[in-house]
Amino acid sequence: MTPRFRPVALEHASRLVNHGPTVLVTSAAGGRRNVMAAAWSMPVEFTPPRIAVVIDKHTFTRELVVASGAFGICLPGTALVDLTYAVGGESGRAVDKFARHGIVATQGPVLGMPLIEAGCAAWLECRLIREPHAEDAYDTCFAEVVAAAADERIFSNGHWSFSDDNAELQTIHHLGAGHFVRAGGVLRAKPLQAPRARGTEGAS
Amino acid sequence: MTPRFRPVALEHASRLVNHGPTVLVTSAAGGRRNVMAAAWSMPVEFTPPRIAVVIDKHTFTRELVVASGAFGICLPGTALVDLTYAVGGESGRAVDKFARHGIVATQGPVLGMPLIEAGCAAWLECRLIREPHAEDAYDTCFAEVVAAAADERIFSNGHWSFSDDNAELQTIHHLGAGHFVRAGGVLRAKPLQAPRARGTEGAS
Repeated sequence: MTPRFRPVALEHASRLVNHGPTVLVTSAAGGRRNVMAAAWSMPVEFTPPRIAVVIDKHTFTRELVVASGAFGICLPGTALVDLTYAVGGESGRAVDKFARHGIVATQGPVLGMPLIEAGCAAWLECRLIREPHAEDAYDTCFAEVVAAAADERIFSNGHWSFSDDNAELQTIHHLGAGHFVRAGGVLRAKPLQAPRARGTEGAS
Repeated sequence: MTPRFRPVALEHASRLVNHGPTVLVTSAAGGRRNVMAAAWSMPVEFTPPRIAVVIDKHTFTRELVVASGAFGICLPGTALVDLTYAVGGESGRAVDKFARHGIVATQGPVLGMPLIEAGCAAWLECRLIREPHAEDAYDTCFAEVVAAAADERIFSNGHWSFSDDNAELQTIHHLGAGHFVRAGGVLRAKPLQAPRARGTEGAS
């Protein structure tokens, strides 16, 4: 499938990772670049769009992210499951993983991060928000999303659309040890019979 | 399906939320209890098992969690998609949502948190790690998992097992506005042809 990426409005960017996909974290600094897999990320705010992602302090990615103050988040589809697992298990300190695996990177529009489109459902370009304590104690890096785009065949007008036609772009979710589940089979919640308390929405 | 919960070893607890499921956050303090839905959570450490979850500072749940220093994380299966969406959209300040929806709660073994087994794949009982800045700036609550259990039909011996036989227990992942995707369709990553750099695993 040839990517058909379109910009995603920033107010919809957090929706791209709302359902907990495993992602690729891309980075670049001082003429070096890298890509690693990360199962541990989540949105923390819709507006402005902010996310948190766990990047181990011993990784080359962390070194590049701190140096540049930026990183990319790419959402691999099912077609990239082998690549995702491979880049999660090897270091980019001694080798350029993009070159090794023939990964084509496009340049992020705001921060120049390397971003992957072929085989991915979406990407987010992120500016690191320095939080030394959270980074040190929990390897948790907070960031603001400054640009985002998605393949229009699976995300458009601010909404995901999972169907049989876009199985290759459907997100993957790591269970551990190279086993992933695919997100699919859309379920639509129906209102329960119990009366709703009026005016209390959003105050759970 | 009648729950068949068995304890999960603490070193395997983070695996329960590794793939980004939407969860139910349960809480109790001062004779009150509550349950809300949360799409935004992630592990931050395997050993000791630690997680982060976003709990808005305006919610009743946050009030109870701060008061007790504890909460539960329950993983609803597909059978609970309507309930999950319902408890995410109503406040527990004026009404006991367990009673309203006929939710049966069991008591957590370490901290006494209300935990849900019927319709859920697993639960984790968590002790809040006070991090006032992260809680204030990002509504992000860090916690250590002190007990965990899972329905043995979908998670046993430290591993998930998704199959046609346990579809009702398969985790759900919120896309937004009541649309969820089900985790299913297991994919097994295969080694890529590119040579692996020896000894570099875990240093991405």
